[in-house]
Amino acid sequence: MKYPTDLLRLIALFKKLPGVGTKTAERFAFQLLTWEESQTQLFAEQISTIKKKIKFCPECGCMGDIDLPCPFCDRTRRDVTTLCIISSPKDAFAIEETHMFRGLYHVIGGLLSPLDGKTPEKIGIDHLKKRIQELQSKEIIIALDSTLEGDTTALYIKEQLSAEGLSVSRLAFGLPLGSSLDFVDGGTLSRALIGRQSF
Amino acid sequence: MKYPTDLLRLIALFKKLPGVGTKTAERFAFQLLTWEESQTQLFAEQISTIKKKIKFCPECGCMGDIDLPCPFCDRTRRDVTTLCIISSPKDAFAIEETHMFRGLYHVIGGLLSPLDGKTPEKIGIDHLKKRIQELQSKEIIIALDSTLEGDTTALYIKEQLSAEGLSVSRLAFGLPLGSSLDFVDGGTLSRALIGRQSF
Repeated sequence: MKYPTDLLRLIALFKKLPGVGTKTAERFAFQLLTWEESQTQLFAEQISTIKKKIKFCPECGCMGDIDLPCPFCDRTRRDVTTLCIISSPKDAFAIEETHMFRGLYHVIGGLLSPLDGKTPEKIGIDHLKKRIQELQSKEIIIALDSTLEGDTTALYIKEQLSAEGLSVSRLAFGLPLGSSLDFVDGGTLSRALIGRQSF
Repeated sequence: MKYPTDLLRLIALFKKLPGVGTKTAERFAFQLLTWEESQTQLFAEQISTIKKKIKFCPECGCMGDIDLPCPFCDRTRRDVTTLCIISSPKDAFAIEETHMFRGLYHVIGGLLSPLDGKTPEKIGIDHLKKRIQELQSKEIIIALDSTLEGDTTALYIKEQLSAEGLSVSRLAFGLPLGSSLDFVDGGTLSRALIGRQSF
């Protein structure tokens, strides 16, 4: 016996969300059936309009409310000589949370991954170079994932920018806070050793 | 810096889904922003209309397509003398998957939990008794969760029905298939020992 057709359709859509498999999607769909009508309508409305209500800044690529100026581009309150390169608008919020960075952001169009069609042109290296020139940035911080794609992209950007005499740094690698050495993988431990600091 | 207001609203709604915390809801919301417009519209439409498109059978409480007769109540193809008591329409699909039961189902209105306002009246014991009388059921199978609430509800239903001379059984407790004794909790192991079968 199969689930009703429309429930199957909803389950298929829930499965498109990251990390959601069949079982979880089924739980979501069945749970949704128990929601108040007003809640499901609100949820549907929010999903339907979210893309229209969010603005991506054409300058830095960060995200903001549609009717407000980009909160990350306020040159009067931020250090315009430092630029932090991130791969997703979400990362800017995470870095702001640390209160350790007051420069500007630049969202590139994803990480290099030639097999998925993410070539150097797609990540917008020209726009990045142009913006650095305009801002007369003095320091570039690369804040990309510590994955294969992140490493490749960071290396590529470094090569492109170093050629223009810019000082480029990347986020440090090492033990995450609160971790036990028992549970840290070999790769992380190696990087933590290499990057050891006087104490 | 906070996420845009509408994104926060969407995140709050995603958090209402079972097992979804802030981090997961954020991932869902950001992922949704990358979907094609047609997909988000389809998703919103499906959520908005799902409750209207699903029918709950007034007889057994199971779920079906709105324009079709209840697939679980087909008396010509099913054994009407056996009744399986479940707590959610979802359970009927799971039991059908086993191909081991051809009787009828009866969905009660949840499990007894007085603190949450789930009193015996709320689970519809009168409707259950009336239906059993109408169907002249010979065997009642209680297929409820093996939790505190499931145990309480099963015990309550058994007492109510035994008084009327019905034969009541409950799903067996024991080792899940494929499990290692190392990882099975003490309670399960005790029940498996008590319910041991000649071999």
